[in-house]
Amino acid sequence: MRFDCLERLIKIALEEDIGPGDLTTELLVDPKLQAEARVAARAPMTLSGLEIFREVYRILDPLVEVELLKKDSEQAERGEAVARLKGPAASILTGERTALNFLGRLSGIATSARLHAEKLAGLKTRLLDTRKTAPGLRALEKKAVLHGGGFNHRLALFDGILIKDNHIAAVGGVRKALELARKNFRQKIEIEVDTSEQFYEALQAEADIILLDNMDPLALKEACDRAAAFYYPGQRLTLLEASGGITLGNIRDIALSGVDFVSVGAITHSAPYADLGLDFEVKKPSAGKRV
Amino acid sequence: MRFDCLERLIKIALEEDIGPGDLTTELLVDPKLQAEARVAARAPMTLSGLEIFREVYRILDPLVEVELLKKDSEQAERGEAVARLKGPAASILTGERTALNFLGRLSGIATSARLHAEKLAGLKTRLLDTRKTAPGLRALEKKAVLHGGGFNHRLALFDGILIKDNHIAAVGGVRKALELARKNFRQKIEIEVDTSEQFYEALQAEADIILLDNMDPLALKEACDRAAAFYYPGQRLTLLEASGGITLGNIRDIALSGVDFVSVGAITHSAPYADLGLDFEVKKPSAGKRV
Amino acid sequence: MRFDCLERLIKIALEEDIGPGDLTTELLVDPKLQAEARVAARAPMTLSGLEIFREVYRILDPLVEVELLKKDSEQAERGEAVARLKGPAASILTGERTALNFLGRLSGIATSARLHAEKLAGLKTRLLDTRKTAPGLRALEKKAVLHGGGFNHRLALFDGILIKDNHIAAVGGVRKALELARKNFRQKIEIEVDTSEQFYEALQAEADIILLDNMDPLALKEACDRAAAFYYPGQRLTLLEASGGITLGNIRDIALSGVDFVSVGAITHSAPYADLGLDFEVKKPSAGKRV
Amino acid sequence: MRFDCLERLIKIALEEDIGPGDLTTELLVDPKLQAEARVAARAPMTLSGLEIFREVYRILDPLVEVELLKKDSEQAERGEAVARLKGPAASILTGERTALNFLGRLSGIATSARLHAEKLAGLKTRLLDTRKTAPGLRALEKKAVLHGGGFNHRLALFDGILIKDNHIAAVGGVRKALELARKNFRQKIEIEVDTSEQFYEALQAEADIILLDNMDPLALKEACDRAAAFYYPGQRLTLLEASGGITLGNIRDIALSGVDFVSVGAITHSAPYADLGLDFEVKKPSAGKRV
Amino acid sequence: MRFDCLERLIKIALEEDIGPGDLTTELLVDPKLQAEARVAARAPMTLSGLEIFREVYRILDPLVEVELLKKDSEQAERGEAVARLKGPAASILTGERTALNFLGRLSGIATSARLHAEKLAGLKTRLLDTRKTAPGLRALEKKAVLHGGGFNHRLALFDGILIKDNHIAAVGGVRKALELARKNFRQKIEIEVDTSEQFYEALQAEADIILLDNMDPLALKEACDRAAAFYYPGQRLTLLEASGGITLGNIRDIALSGVDFVSVGAITHSAPYADLGLDFEVKKPSAGKRV
Amino acid sequence: MRFDCLERLIKIALEEDIGPGDLTTELLVDPKLQAEARVAARAPMTLSGLEIFREVYRILDPLVEVELLKKDSEQAERGEAVARLKGPAASILTGERTALNFLGRLSGIATSARLHAEKLAGLKTRLLDTRKTAPGLRALEKKAVLHGGGFNHRLALFDGILIKDNHIAAVGGVRKALELARKNFRQKIEIEVDTSEQFYEALQAEADIILLDNMDPLALKEACDRAAAFYYPGQRLTLLEASGGITLGNIRDIALSGVDFVSVGAITHSAPYADLGLDFEVKKPSAGKRV
Repeated sequence: MRFDCLERLIKIALEEDIGPGDLTTELLVDPKLQAEARVAARAPMTLSGLEIFREVYRILDPLVEVELLKKDSEQAERGEAVARLKGPAASILTGERTALNFLGRLSGIATSARLHAEKLAGLKTRLLDTRKTAPGLRALEKKAVLHGGGFNHRLALFDGILIKDNHIAAVGGVRKALELARKNFRQKIEIEVDTSEQFYEALQAEADIILLDNMDPLALKEACDRAAAFYYPGQRLTLLEASGGITLGNIRDIALSGVDFVSVGAITHSAPYADLGLDFEVKKPSAGKRV
Repeated sequence: MRFDCLERLIKIALEEDIGPGDLTTELLVDPKLQAEARVAARAPMTLSGLEIFREVYRILDPLVEVELLKKDSEQAERGEAVARLKGPAASILTGERTALNFLGRLSGIATSARLHAEKLAGLKTRLLDTRKTAPGLRALEKKAVLHGGGFNHRLALFDGILIKDNHIAAVGGVRKALELARKNFRQKIEIEVDTSEQFYEALQAEADIILLDNMDPLALKEACDRAAAFYYPGQRLTLLEASGGITLGNIRDIALSGVDFVSVGAITHSAPYADLGLDFEVKKPSAGKRV
Repeated sequence: MRFDCLERLIKIALEEDIGPGDLTTELLVDPKLQAEARVAARAPMTLSGLEIFREVYRILDPLVEVELLKKDSEQAERGEAVARLKGPAASILTGERTALNFLGRLSGIATSARLHAEKLAGLKTRLLDTRKTAPGLRALEKKAVLHGGGFNHRLALFDGILIKDNHIAAVGGVRKALELARKNFRQKIEIEVDTSEQFYEALQAEADIILLDNMDPLALKEACDRAAAFYYPGQRLTLLEASGGITLGNIRDIALSGVDFVSVGAITHSAPYADLGLDFEVKKPSAGKRV
Repeated sequence: MRFDCLERLIKIALEEDIGPGDLTTELLVDPKLQAEARVAARAPMTLSGLEIFREVYRILDPLVEVELLKKDSEQAERGEAVARLKGPAASILTGERTALNFLGRLSGIATSARLHAEKLAGLKTRLLDTRKTAPGLRALEKKAVLHGGGFNHRLALFDGILIKDNHIAAVGGVRKALELARKNFRQKIEIEVDTSEQFYEALQAEADIILLDNMDPLALKEACDRAAAFYYPGQRLTLLEASGGITLGNIRDIALSGVDFVSVGAITHSAPYADLGLDFEVKKPSAGKRV
Repeated sequence: MRFDCLERLIKIALEEDIGPGDLTTELLVDPKLQAEARVAARAPMTLSGLEIFREVYRILDPLVEVELLKKDSEQAERGEAVARLKGPAASILTGERTALNFLGRLSGIATSARLHAEKLAGLKTRLLDTRKTAPGLRALEKKAVLHGGGFNHRLALFDGILIKDNHIAAVGGVRKALELARKNFRQKIEIEVDTSEQFYEALQAEADIILLDNMDPLALKEACDRAAAFYYPGQRLTLLEASGGITLGNIRDIALSGVDFVSVGAITHSAPYADLGLDFEVKKPSAGKRV
Repeated sequence: MRFDCLERLIKIALEEDIGPGDLTTELLVDPKLQAEARVAARAPMTLSGLEIFREVYRILDPLVEVELLKKDSEQAERGEAVARLKGPAASILTGERTALNFLGRLSGIATSARLHAEKLAGLKTRLLDTRKTAPGLRALEKKAVLHGGGFNHRLALFDGILIKDNHIAAVGGVRKALELARKNFRQKIEIEVDTSEQFYEALQAEADIILLDNMDPLALKEACDRAAAFYYPGQRLTLLEASGGITLGNIRDIALSGVDFVSVGAITHSAPYADLGLDFEVKKPSAGKRV
């Protein structure tokens, strides 16, 4: 994430939840009251967003100390503590939802990525993400995929060339599209193909990477064989990526076809929230004793 | 959504996807090429975010005309078109992912809300959302809940008083918490209770709304009866809300207990993405004929 | 005030006074020259804005140490020191006007609020402010009212329901307005009435709070009696608020009618500036002796 | 005002009053309801801020048409209409307080300036403002002074040299201060003096403008005579400015001393609000008839 | 340039030149006075920045109509008009310096690029720019290079991999650096080499592009031959780029060595300003006749 | 530079070069690797921008310690070190180009100013800059002129009155223009003249400063004599400034005419870049030994 965007994002999130003030906490909680709290997983999960969680509190109130007990990409078991907080009770309460919304969402994505990546155990095929992320959260969600053991496809439109079906339609064909793309001398060129005709055309035109959309394992296997046969020994091979309709149920079969990558939108766009809770312990300031 | 925050959000989303430029489209697509495109549902869904979809293009390139064929809160069937676009092919391509990311996410939430709300058909109980939303998207996601037939709980910490368990712990009891909250003379006061002792205490202390956390239908029924018996005829009743662990499977049973509201975090935090696609049709500018 | 708006406001204020530089100070004052200064009241006043005063210097130049000798909401007598400054002479001079503009304005409001609040001594009636504040300074001016012993009405349009005459006209009547407002289940509903007919209608429709606009003490007394008679014992009473044309001269008579609140726009919109001055003492850096 | 600061200021003001929404209007007023409204003075006043008033609505909702019936710097009598509005009733209601807060504050300043300026009728002495303005509103308040018939002193620290007592103390004397200031070859140099010794020193050192702080008419008269006697015929005279403790009661006597300028902080920092009201007329959309 | 950064940049530029107002124009020029003006080259040049010139006025005052008589990348002769302006005289004057600063700087770069590119006439070698651009103006200056007939190297650190000497030192060798870089599967990998040993190592490790730093034509020729001999027929060749110490005097000799690219920092970081002037013609509003 | 604009500018510059990340460094450099580096001049130069250089790293990564070995306005010889860096190797690499772009550009301007200023050695004539600066960098470039021994003309349109030929045309004559400008009582008035008729008119109308545009030394000498003869002894003289077509070759002859100032656009708009390099030394974290 760009070096000041994270702060902007966290401020937007705090602003939308706090705005002119936390009515309840302001009415009830003595600003001087100190507290300790514990954040724990309520289900097994792969963690992501712990640094963000701490950053939320740093921005909201630097007096809240957040000690991380786990690291991003580690597993947490049900009931396991992942962080401890210490500081003004009011600030801990006010930041709770915002901080947990980041942590729960990102850990949900890491967990989903992990589940998919584990299906590829022992294979050379890598799990890739897509650009189907929540608006404004792209960079964080892409990192969560890494934490879950996946790899990142291009971050955005500006850092990779991927010629999709609509581009091909606009240009008038696979070969012409690849020629035009070659004006960029720094990027490898990836192209999406829907048919074996397009695939063969892309192979002949020396695409660097070919994305095979919505093909079954058999068709993918055939493509892999063809690509292997196409080049002379010692040359760089065209890389192959499978995409479309991939689920936990079929991802291993697809990978066994021999493709280099499988890309799965669901690990970001439909990952269920990871449930974490903040358990609050108030300390009586006078007595210094925990309640 | 505040009157200029939506624009800011869309710009952030466009910026994170386009940044310094759409490499592929710039290399391939003639800036003068005009195109038409069609956005269609790839599965049945309740729509939300159509106005945002249009706004994305208005901000990216006002030359892209977006005609909405459906309205937010309407149903779309599989394959049904929900919008048509017309304008520069390059701009349509460049904005596609950002615009669809908003529409797919928000329609996913509306669809999830609809599924839950339909379970309450014929009952007085209302479906409420929570503050468990994606950071930065609170206002849009709360609107999506409305489009799906749910109702909104408080938007944020600043527009409603909800005394939670941690507040009670910090203050030292239900009664004291309610007394402190009453310093605010404009808001009705809601309090979360975990036990029937707390519930009865809240009832006696004249809480306006009581949130019953993680109780089964039987316990909820008993609470409803008790609340009804507590007041004299003609008086305003305390409202009751059930929350925690509510699923499509048990939501109706919970509602049948007689509570006024059920609040469900999953309709925002774990709603699966609604799949929509943009089908692109290029027009040859010279011939004026569709490809 | 939202957690980052104060900083933005102070930066805007510094920017509008300093812009590309303080011509006079840059030409005359050695950047290394250290100084001490003293801020004193030039008339009796209730203080507000001392923290803001300090924050202005923290943002302008953290090397300026500001020691507050008094606290917001305390009284200062004519000639009494309220703060001491120590640091680079140039920075103290450059920030002087901006820092004093905040302090003088806010202390003026606190002083005006105090004068009105003192008239209510011994009564249950509370002094409220309005939304008639200087654009951009709402949160600070509302706090100044608290410092002066007043209470805050709603902060803004988003945190309270107040149905005014124009709303009633738009909707078509007091009863219908109250019914519509009740769709919001969290807020108590306040309505403004101009006549005793409207007042009685609002009472019957169970408004939570009734604002009586521009009524004399007699009419107010009658309204209070009526409200008291309307409800059964043990029930929650409708709260009454008087507003319009209230001055230091008549505020006590109005309060004696028995209303719960009087709201006064003048305590914010027409409070005279509180006069404070910054007395500067230069230290010769070499000799270490005061001039 | 800088070309985009006004918009920023208005957005801040709207944001602080509306935030996530106007609860009352959203609950009560049909978004399609059209209305007309009339803004009228509730006391005699000099107008300022009418363009800002219109700009507030342009930014909030361009569908609200604001027709200005008067111009800034014109007088309005009690009850006289100054503007008419037409458009969505909801938007007119939502923007009312923000728009009136600008107009009432700025017209208050213009009215106060007018009252002071009228005291100088027939004299060459000009009324000047100071930098004692509400934080963030400097440019608007300085314009209001112009609308009231006053003139502007320097806008800020960056566009004029004014050597004050603290500067003289820091530098070590009037003469040395003037010499240092002369390094700036484009600005005329103004210096504040408290005593006749300082005054004579400033005169000899060829200050361009001398500000005489807190002097009575007699002392001011003597200063004017001395300045006149100091220069040879045909030369440019030093300009004299009186400041400090000037009221409506003594301003004319002070001006009669012969000074070129009197500067008065109260016309901005303590101007009472000018009372204006927005009278609302609802039109039934179907019948097209006024209510 | 990202879709809203250009506007931000122009606003910053206008703000730094205008700030709270154009003193001279405000004092002298009747706001209603209309004028026409003509922008002409005062020396031969390649144009760049004409659209920006127009955009400056669109942002400052949309009433100023700017008609462009030439296009970016075209040549202008000494005295030739490149644009005509029509609108409020005051606005034309106020925006003149800012608008010309963009146009003169960018045309200077385009002219410098053209001079270098012309030296490569008839050769396959392309002129590239570097990242040595004025802070904040990268995107505009890179476009000016295109207008002058050059090509763009990577825009920034995020859109291309270029391993420089410091990276090699940090990693411990050319081969290891190339292996690590290959983790990115989308980018071609460029590496800078200072010696023929490094060059050969890079060739063997299949670098996609090799940047030869500060080598003379002879050494470059040898490198080109070696690269050609290294691969089998039909394979993709490693691309070669020369950089360092390249001037108008030696650029052709360097290109004749056979390298694919020469990159020259001076075309952006030391391009002399292109001199253009704005000739102003006032129209008398009453007579409607040109002066 | 305004107190928060510098930070904004540096963030824009870092953002445009780094954006979502430094691809090369992220792939190659261990985040824990520490390094030392040395910034050295590659040619003789006058330094400017060292503080900015340090600030770039402070904003990018506070863990990078930058020790400045020289000060702005000092000379550096070829090969001389001007700064040392110590900290994370990755951050040093990522910030290198942005930090050097500031330093090289500003030192280039300081060096150019120094070369021109040295030509005026022994004369009373001062070297002035103009407003022909790179958009967004005005304040920094004006400071670089000071570092090179020049003086600053007005910073912008808001802090000085300079009546140019187009203003005179708009107003209808030199005398009228000067009269109108005199409404501003704080600024000395400068006017540009192209002919000796205009010059004499300006002299008679008591302009404070006269800018003589594009006149040769003889014409300038005559103007200086005329100005000297015009005033009585003891009076303040009109200051004279020469501008237009001034080069290193003719600047001394022009100054010898006796003008008070010469202003030269080229010292900012066409100053060649000053070449500095960052020499990197990696430390092995384990062994603590330099590579």
